[in-house]
Amino acid sequence: MSYERENIRRMAGYVYGEQPADPAVIKLNTNENPYPPSPAVREALAAFDVDTLRRYPPATADPLRGEFAEQLGVEMDNVVAANGGDEALRLALATFVDPGATLGLAEPAYSLMPVLGAAQDCRMRTVPLDADWKPPTDTAKRLNDAGAKLTCLVNPHAPSGVLLDADFVSTLASALDGVLLVDEAYVDFVNPNRRHNLAPLVVAHPNLLLLRTLSKGYALAGLRVGFLIGDAALIAPVLTKTRDSYNVDAIAQAVAAAALRDRRYAAELCARVRAERGRLAANLRSRGFAVPDSEANFLLARTPNAATLQTGLRKRGILVRHFDTPRLRDCLRVTVGAPNENNALVAALDELAASP
Amino acid sequence: MSYERENIRRMAGYVYGEQPADPAVIKLNTNENPYPPSPAVREALAAFDVDTLRRYPPATADPLRGEFAEQLGVEMDNVVAANGGDEALRLALATFVDPGATLGLAEPAYSLMPVLGAAQDCRMRTVPLDADWKPPTDTAKRLNDAGAKLTCLVNPHAPSGVLLDADFVSTLASALDGVLLVDEAYVDFVNPNRRHNLAPLVVAHPNLLLLRTLSKGYALAGLRVGFLIGDAALIAPVLTKTRDSYNVDAIAQAVAAAALRDRRYAAELCARVRAERGRLAANLRSRGFAVPDSEANFLLARTPNAATLQTGLRKRGILVRHFDTPRLRDCLRVTVGAPNENNALVAALDELAASP
Repeated sequence: MSYERENIRRMAGYVYGEQPADPAVIKLNTNENPYPPSPAVREALAAFDVDTLRRYPPATADPLRGEFAEQLGVEMDNVVAANGGDEALRLALATFVDPGATLGLAEPAYSLMPVLGAAQDCRMRTVPLDADWKPPTDTAKRLNDAGAKLTCLVNPHAPSGVLLDADFVSTLASALDGVLLVDEAYVDFVNPNRRHNLAPLVVAHPNLLLLRTLSKGYALAGLRVGFLIGDAALIAPVLTKTRDSYNVDAIAQAVAAAALRDRRYAAELCARVRAERGRLAANLRSRGFAVPDSEANFLLARTPNAATLQTGLRKRGILVRHFDTPRLRDCLRVTVGAPNENNALVAALDELAASP
Repeated sequence: MSYERENIRRMAGYVYGEQPADPAVIKLNTNENPYPPSPAVREALAAFDVDTLRRYPPATADPLRGEFAEQLGVEMDNVVAANGGDEALRLALATFVDPGATLGLAEPAYSLMPVLGAAQDCRMRTVPLDADWKPPTDTAKRLNDAGAKLTCLVNPHAPSGVLLDADFVSTLASALDGVLLVDEAYVDFVNPNRRHNLAPLVVAHPNLLLLRTLSKGYALAGLRVGFLIGDAALIAPVLTKTRDSYNVDAIAQAVAAAALRDRRYAAELCARVRAERGRLAANLRSRGFAVPDSEANFLLARTPNAATLQTGLRKRGILVRHFDTPRLRDCLRVTVGAPNENNALVAALDELAASP
């Protein structure tokens, strides 16, 4: 006798990136920031009034989302705070996609998305990305034909790191019948010279949702704070109906607001990651790996023997990610680490090349 | 043009208990603990290694649920940690109730439940409680006839505080075709002399889920930590499929585990609340209110002019809860506060009686 819903029984759960207990392991497999979060986080924790925990937290996290909205240059009604980006993705599905309706995805997509789609019991329609990791020109037509209620893109794209610019996103949003959710988990690592900023687009596009998180750029994956940004009418049902009543706890609200106020620190971290990204990409390319230009904190390195290399690296205490799918089988996704971690990776690859 | 699902568009969101900004207001409206959480909470925050926040938290919160399972005398596989009891309720719906299928509720129920049911687009079948606030003897038959996939009871019941014993719950679980979820949000306030403990029942009942939270008994409503307890086969899909991948953040995991380890402190808080509960009930009864025996941290006080009294109390800076439904229209739900708060309530009621 099984009590769970049939779609839940049928589906497989999400497979996490490995989190080893051994602190000596070099973890370049889950795109975490190699640097610690802002000192303002420690100060916010020390200043937190523990006695207030007996009360419910601000239900809609107004001080936090107010701070975030101000930084983005949007109104508070354009923002909802979530218990991490993963909750934000689930909320978009729960709000906009009926069971049996269609979720549009680029292929490859964030591997959590098909899991969330299965839990919501919706159909999935995938559009394979072109060779340059960008959606093909007929993406909107294909997804409209499939009746997609929600389409999710990761931008910068994971696992390639390729960035779509604002014009591309704007054109796609205009052409889609349903909601377009752009998962900007890695946007803090985009080179500031590109002046990339999608936030102003939500005013012109009533069907555009942006997802942000403090996990990557702010080095706060453990805190679980993310946001959805969109037209107030698109945000309202998430804020007032599908979101759990008190979905971001009081400590996380205080810590996240403090981290946001010190965004100069986060910008410095991201600049360091970008410098290492360039250095590591050059090192990998000079060793024969094909590496597309990445605007994220990871690189996709193509090589004929990716699976073997992953195993060899693991034996040397270095974790990288390998996805056993047709499109990605000959690639490794490597998180950009601290300089010593990236050096250790390159040295281990040289060892493996010398004695495979 | 509306993008949200039709059931979401149609539904109304949850109405929170009021959270006034003025700290002078006496808040007896949302069943928060009048006392601060354990000193161990402050120590856990001070000892928390902020640098670890750059990494994802333990995905299934194993150290925390291990601690909780050990205290309950069950296995870790019998427990899943949630981002507050509200998330636990939503997860039960998402896992066990298909859209269009039936959710069984006692009437009156926790007012969040119909909201969660509407968001899941399921039917609701309510069974009115008897005059003693207990489910009628034919509850299982009625809900089985309605095809209820999940039935939720709050025990001790809200808003009456009435407790169903283990035999009652066991009999009901055996008779129900679907899952029985017993929301034990207030169970820490049950008189220990009753030796009330439903945890052993999950071994014998493959369809029984218990919900616990640290919000009330542990004075941690702001932290958002709850649990579901059940047969391992019932817990598994929640743990591995419907739960957000990292639903409890790293700080909340550490703080909650510390609070649980100091459960003697929580037991002392609850004993103080129980003493006040008895004193306040006697004071209310001697003033003509009908008050059922409560095993929770609130009292349901019946009086002909409940709505007027609520307004009068509010003018005197005291918040209590009034539900404008046929069954509860002539009742006030009063959270048991600290002695000075309860004294202020009784004095204000005397004033209102003297000059209505």
